[in-house]
Amino acid sequence: MNRQVKLAARPSGFPRASDFQLVRSPMPWPARGQVLVQTIYLSVDPYMRVRMSDAESYARPLAMGELMPGGAVGRVLESADPKYPIGCIVQGMLGWQDYAVVNGGELRAIDESLAPIQTALGVLGMPGLTAYFGLLDVCHPKAGQTVVVSGAAGAVGMLVCQLARIMGCRVVGVAGSDSKVAFLVNELGLDGAFNYRTTSDYFGELKRLCPAGIDVYFDNVGGAISDAVLRLINVKARISICGQISQYNLDEPELGPRWFGQLVAKRAKAQGFLVSDYAERFSEGLQGMGQWLRQGKLKYREDVAQGLEKAPQAFIRMLHGMNIGKQLVQVSEWTA
Amino acid sequence: MNRQVKLAARPSGFPRASDFQLVRSPMPWPARGQVLVQTIYLSVDPYMRVRMSDAESYARPLAMGELMPGGAVGRVLESADPKYPIGCIVQGMLGWQDYAVVNGGELRAIDESLAPIQTALGVLGMPGLTAYFGLLDVCHPKAGQTVVVSGAAGAVGMLVCQLARIMGCRVVGVAGSDSKVAFLVNELGLDGAFNYRTTSDYFGELKRLCPAGIDVYFDNVGGAISDAVLRLINVKARISICGQISQYNLDEPELGPRWFGQLVAKRAKAQGFLVSDYAERFSEGLQGMGQWLRQGKLKYREDVAQGLEKAPQAFIRMLHGMNIGKQLVQVSEWTA
Repeated sequence: MNRQVKLAARPSGFPRASDFQLVRSPMPWPARGQVLVQTIYLSVDPYMRVRMSDAESYARPLAMGELMPGGAVGRVLESADPKYPIGCIVQGMLGWQDYAVVNGGELRAIDESLAPIQTALGVLGMPGLTAYFGLLDVCHPKAGQTVVVSGAAGAVGMLVCQLARIMGCRVVGVAGSDSKVAFLVNELGLDGAFNYRTTSDYFGELKRLCPAGIDVYFDNVGGAISDAVLRLINVKARISICGQISQYNLDEPELGPRWFGQLVAKRAKAQGFLVSDYAERFSEGLQGMGQWLRQGKLKYREDVAQGLEKAPQAFIRMLHGMNIGKQLVQVSEWTA
Repeated sequence: MNRQVKLAARPSGFPRASDFQLVRSPMPWPARGQVLVQTIYLSVDPYMRVRMSDAESYARPLAMGELMPGGAVGRVLESADPKYPIGCIVQGMLGWQDYAVVNGGELRAIDESLAPIQTALGVLGMPGLTAYFGLLDVCHPKAGQTVVVSGAAGAVGMLVCQLARIMGCRVVGVAGSDSKVAFLVNELGLDGAFNYRTTSDYFGELKRLCPAGIDVYFDNVGGAISDAVLRLINVKARISICGQISQYNLDEPELGPRWFGQLVAKRAKAQGFLVSDYAERFSEGLQGMGQWLRQGKLKYREDVAQGLEKAPQAFIRMLHGMNIGKQLVQVSEWTA
């Protein structure tokens, strides 16, 4: 028997448990070229909130009753693709379910001897590649420049912060709790960080932490944090827009100051990107991240919920910013 | 005797005649390496409004009582720089005055046999270079793509429209009068244009004129026109932000929809630029524009006021969008 989490209702504001439905369904079976995978770790990510809405965006809205999508790592139970033998560990878009049947061409084999398998969902997976290309390719940070990261303690943000440190930048993080701020400063070695939930004057705080202005802004959050950052950007600043999690749960679009004038005044660039735009360069990105990881220059942190039935709650917690580091759901047992 | 137009008061909203003062001053005289130039044509441009304000922006605010700055073309009356003999026609930042003393190094000699001398303030000057680099370098328009230009009948906009046509693009202009719209469609051959002063539904009009969406947006205006454009941008759209004339005369910053989310959704880029960033490539730009001009592929239009004392009025008219094409002030006589 398979269990699947499906979209039960389009959320209004923050999703609630009742927007999801856990259903039982027959065990799927692989046809020619397909593989049956048992989910071990499931990733829950902000983009899923975008897909739950029916507004047009970078990805097709989910249909009502459709399986919640998600990247996951699992073990091959049955295989009709010789590239993925039984017992092999793979990563792919398995969705929120115990068992998935996937075309072999959509999987990637994971070498479990190199790093913990769930890193294929974090530092050596989509968040790692997002940080790598979104910071290095979109922003070209230079040593000595100041980089500000919003959502700094999240799956992508914590990696962006560390990449910016590796590049020799002054790095300032914005996060949503005192423990996240402590993690950023004490464990990741950031030059500064502040808790936006307990700070009223974002501009003043950023100005204090970025005395030479802001050269690079990696934005996961948007809204009032971005407004304050934009007032402090330097000439030729680069803004990489990765996500806008502060806006995903709004029913009405929020108004804010117009920023095009500031982009002219500072000859600055604001660029949105999706990691999938860099598909041709993924091996370069994984090689870079893997090397820094082995050299001990990159740390990562995970927040793991137990059980597929906890996936909606883990997802909602993450949207409220209650996780530190990569939010995962462990769906079945694994011993390395 | 020299006459100079100086800043008399910082404007609130649109500048008024009383914000300027015409003063008489002694005739200046060139020291070693300097040149005395009599102004023939003076250029008035939107950036001057930015400098009249004391808000921090891309250029230093003017001091009260300071000479109004401006690019101009003039004739050399006295010279202590052998590179610029008496009678030579030059272009430089002469300011709003009859006579200027300028360091030779800040002038550029104009070959009056190549093109009318005032084109050094238009198609073969700062507006031409702004159009060239702001469209071609920031946006890389491709044949068949759709380009929207705001302020399309202005000094820069009319050139951007034509460059986009030369690149094989579908070009749609937004302008502020029916005669500008007629000029754009009938004389410059645009695929479409509309008058934003008499159109209430910018989004609907743009959607009708851009059935395949918008790939490139060259923005001189900002505000509600940009809001409508942004709703229609395609994946990988490029936005070149040249000016924000709709915002320059506001005393309070205007609020608008937040656009970072749309930049992510479309993986689009918004980039501000100043033509001075391209100083090292000016000769390339002038060569390109000159060639298209000689080939008859670029037309230009001028709106010429007569007399230095009319400069404030010409400038205010231009800010209200009442000019078609490059706004000039003829300060002294010239016969080619």
